[in-house]
Amino acid sequence: MELVFCTGNSHKLSEVANILGDDFSFLTLTDIGYYDEIPEPYNTLEENSLAKAQQVYKQTGKDCFAEDTGLFIEALNGEPGVFSARYAGQSSDSLRNIEKVLEKLKGHKNRAAYFKTIITLMIKGMIVQFSGQCNGMISERTSGVKGFGYDPIFIPEGSEKSFAEQSPEEKNAVSHRRKAFDAMSKYLHTLNS
Amino acid sequence: MELVFCTGNSHKLSEVANILGDDFSFLTLTDIGYYDEIPEPYNTLEENSLAKAQQVYKQTGKDCFAEDTGLFIEALNGEPGVFSARYAGQSSDSLRNIEKVLEKLKGHKNRAAYFKTIITLMIKGMIVQFSGQCNGMISERTSGVKGFGYDPIFIPEGSEKSFAEQSPEEKNAVSHRRKAFDAMSKYLHTLNS
Repeated sequence: MELVFCTGNSHKLSEVANILGDDFSFLTLTDIGYYDEIPEPYNTLEENSLAKAQQVYKQTGKDCFAEDTGLFIEALNGEPGVFSARYAGQSSDSLRNIEKVLEKLKGHKNRAAYFKTIITLMIKGMIVQFSGQCNGMISERTSGVKGFGYDPIFIPEGSEKSFAEQSPEEKNAVSHRRKAFDAMSKYLHTLNS
Repeated sequence: MELVFCTGNSHKLSEVANILGDDFSFLTLTDIGYYDEIPEPYNTLEENSLAKAQQVYKQTGKDCFAEDTGLFIEALNGEPGVFSARYAGQSSDSLRNIEKVLEKLKGHKNRAAYFKTIITLMIKGMIVQFSGQCNGMISERTSGVKGFGYDPIFIPEGSEKSFAEQSPEEKNAVSHRRKAFDAMSKYLHTLNS
């Protein structure tokens, strides 16, 4: 089965390749010569990941999957949520985004937050979505340089270290993205059996 | 869990109630006071059932499911397919539809066909589709008065009788709709466990 991963984000590409390991491989948009912009115009992870997968499926006819991920902070009423990648502006600069979160959370005792990933799989025209969530808290300051996005300020439940201080193996053992992709793997294995 | 079944088709309502039995119950559109028309403008079962479920979900915020079903006849290149309900015109008259199929198949030796159902479940904003297929053949003439739609000319694999000659229990043991709803039930039980 040949599946295309609808993302232009190189961090996500390598993280997902790492998560999936030998379980199954995927093609990238570059592999199939797809260079169109894929917008994320909606207010939910479900709608954005659906729009991405549908666009690629309709234009290429290839089975594919897309994901959208957000960081939801309790004290900020779920912000930055679906706007995580562009919280501080359209440029998707992680440092600016992190700065904005820490600024807004200044003085807040409640640092509870969770990452959530929604994957949309389009296979033989059928749509199946999977979700994964990782609970944790937002630290007072950044620590670590691994990972990407908000990883330097997100400390997952049961750990003392931020995602950016963890090895890929540590992060990928418990992450939201791991849980969502595990659910997708399980589904694909059911199809093959 | 309260799920709304997005259909105005009373045959489907009672058949699905029969299939699900005590497994779980659902609300009808009438139960929730929803009387808007739900169009099926697309060329695939997947897109039509998605559009129906999305419309009701967006307007009511309620978890819901919709289904779309088609009869795909090999010798007619998959016709009537997604247009099964309105093959002979917009009025959805089963007799006219059956007449048209028998007319078009006149002289054809290959009578192979299958029914296919796609369900779209919208639950907490997430979309999951399920499919079910029942292979069989189109008879030379109608027989039986049970069921609905093309049941009087569809003889499922392993049977001598058309769906319209079978009791609801016989039909619902092997039908496309049964297989799709079994898959949805299984999924919903996983969510609850």
